[in-house]
Amino acid sequence: MEAEAQPFDSLEKFAKAIENPPSASRRARDEALERNSRLTKPAGSLGRLEELAVWFASWKGLAAPELLSPRIVVFAANHGVAARGVSAYPAQVTAQMVANFESGGAAINQLARTAQAELRVHVLSLDRPTRDIAEGPAMNENEAVEALCCGWRSVSDCVDLLVVGEMGIGNTTSASAIALALFGGSAGDWTGAGTGVSGARLKYKSRIVEQAVGANKTSLSNPLEILRCLGGREIAAMAGAIARARVLGIPVILDGFVCTAAASVLHAVDASLLDHAVAGHLSKESSHGKLLSEMGMSPLLDLGMRLGEASGAALAIGLLRSAVELHRGMSTFEEAGVSSAD
Amino acid sequence: MEAEAQPFDSLEKFAKAIENPPSASRRARDEALERNSRLTKPAGSLGRLEELAVWFASWKGLAAPELLSPRIVVFAANHGVAARGVSAYPAQVTAQMVANFESGGAAINQLARTAQAELRVHVLSLDRPTRDIAEGPAMNENEAVEALCCGWRSVSDCVDLLVVGEMGIGNTTSASAIALALFGGSAGDWTGAGTGVSGARLKYKSRIVEQAVGANKTSLSNPLEILRCLGGREIAAMAGAIARARVLGIPVILDGFVCTAAASVLHAVDASLLDHAVAGHLSKESSHGKLLSEMGMSPLLDLGMRLGEASGAALAIGLLRSAVELHRGMSTFEEAGVSSAD
Repeated sequence: MEAEAQPFDSLEKFAKAIENPPSASRRARDEALERNSRLTKPAGSLGRLEELAVWFASWKGLAAPELLSPRIVVFAANHGVAARGVSAYPAQVTAQMVANFESGGAAINQLARTAQAELRVHVLSLDRPTRDIAEGPAMNENEAVEALCCGWRSVSDCVDLLVVGEMGIGNTTSASAIALALFGGSAGDWTGAGTGVSGARLKYKSRIVEQAVGANKTSLSNPLEILRCLGGREIAAMAGAIARARVLGIPVILDGFVCTAAASVLHAVDASLLDHAVAGHLSKESSHGKLLSEMGMSPLLDLGMRLGEASGAALAIGLLRSAVELHRGMSTFEEAGVSSAD
Repeated sequence: MEAEAQPFDSLEKFAKAIENPPSASRRARDEALERNSRLTKPAGSLGRLEELAVWFASWKGLAAPELLSPRIVVFAANHGVAARGVSAYPAQVTAQMVANFESGGAAINQLARTAQAELRVHVLSLDRPTRDIAEGPAMNENEAVEALCCGWRSVSDCVDLLVVGEMGIGNTTSASAIALALFGGSAGDWTGAGTGVSGARLKYKSRIVEQAVGANKTSLSNPLEILRCLGGREIAAMAGAIARARVLGIPVILDGFVCTAAASVLHAVDASLLDHAVAGHLSKESSHGKLLSEMGMSPLLDLGMRLGEASGAALAIGLLRSAVELHRGMSTFEEAGVSSAD
């Protein structure tokens, strides 16, 4: 990637950079709705595919756009809290899975190829895990800004769809703590199995989530501080990437619980910062549905997936591609000489 | 298509032809399950994609098969009952939509191309609508056998996945009558908007469904008689195609309400006749969910679609392709040097 001047050097300047982003094109939206109403099918009979096509058209600023250059970005980072055994896997799995991404053997490699999407992997200082959130802030301001910048720079205007995802042993603990700090309730409401913990270990994980919010409570004054204190580097990077896509007017498909937690930080700053985003799927991670509800989002897929790596959102690229091809390729009633409803 | 000796010349011989079909390969299933357990992901974290991959492997008889030659077959036919105004569209739309399929302008053309699937359209005597089911049997035995044969012959062993769908103004009325005759309840339970009727017209449609079952009640002695008396030619053809796929061991993705009604006839003959089938999606047609429940099937997609034409099932081909590519392409923990769960 080309060098780029640092886009912001503090959380305050990041907040400034995402103020008043441009809206989707209302003209393109109206033209797409009008075209949709003339296509050879009963009105509304393609359900959410129609909504997806119109949403994509409004962000591309065209009545009947193509999906040309989807990009999937996976961010990887390590978490101090992983040393507490909150995951079913040891922390070295983060680096091992990065090697697996690089050699093409992970789930996301297959899904990116099948979806005809570019896949990029950004590794964030695996040898410097964030500090244990159960003891205090995960990152200082410079570290949080650095991670946000990494995500911000991973998106450029040659992309017409962004999907972000993560790899980071321990990161559902971090995501749960962010959700608890942003939306309240009890730690149990927001804590799930992650890579597969249950029983006593799940209860322990839930206590760690509660302890993390308690240990940081004097610092959790706004959403970006919550991200700094409870987030991991990959979570901040996803937030940075989603924010950059919003500023550039590039539509985004969100992945599962950890990705949605990153997005929820932006939502808490200003709900319109997610106008460009749809939820790709409902994760089996038990708190994902609750998080999507808080944000008023309805997932496209519900297949019991809980892998991360952007996998659920990558699968949803196929739905968007189909929606776009339907909208572009179908004949109108007039073109096809088909009678309308009586 | 090559000429083929008529596979059966009576409903009784059709019933014989589908007795004791071969099962999926248990060996391939076990090998696929074993491979799945070694792939670099937490156990079960790909949810239904894992089930799909193992199901497909078991029918292809290979531990890690490719999806090579999916075929979508759309059957079109006309219904005498359409003259009663049970649809929002006039009956000539069936032929107009066939022309639209042939010129590539319909929804299924775009979905087939996107899914990299072969699309075939079989037109069944559009100039001879079935008789009005509200007055008596839709077809005589020869007509029903002819339609079953058309479907049967549309499937051959060069295909490794079958999707079937339909076009026929008035056919949700027919499908509702079949479901009422097979599963009981009231006509209202099984009658939905179809192409988009509501209010008084929906109530009228429901009364016609009830009247159809009443007018035929002395003939509805078994599922194939129900198909003959209440089905359309395209519904019988779908049943024939799904049955042939079962006999050849080719997996099937079912589409929405009308397709599922065709499959439900086979289910009523013998539930194991659908061992090779999964439900592609939940249609917005209100009675589809109830029909799937009766058959113990859980749909892959739920996107508010209600178009027919095999559209929901065609969209689900992409999910199956992803599942198959994940299963084939992912590295095992050993190959990738990734640590297992502790």
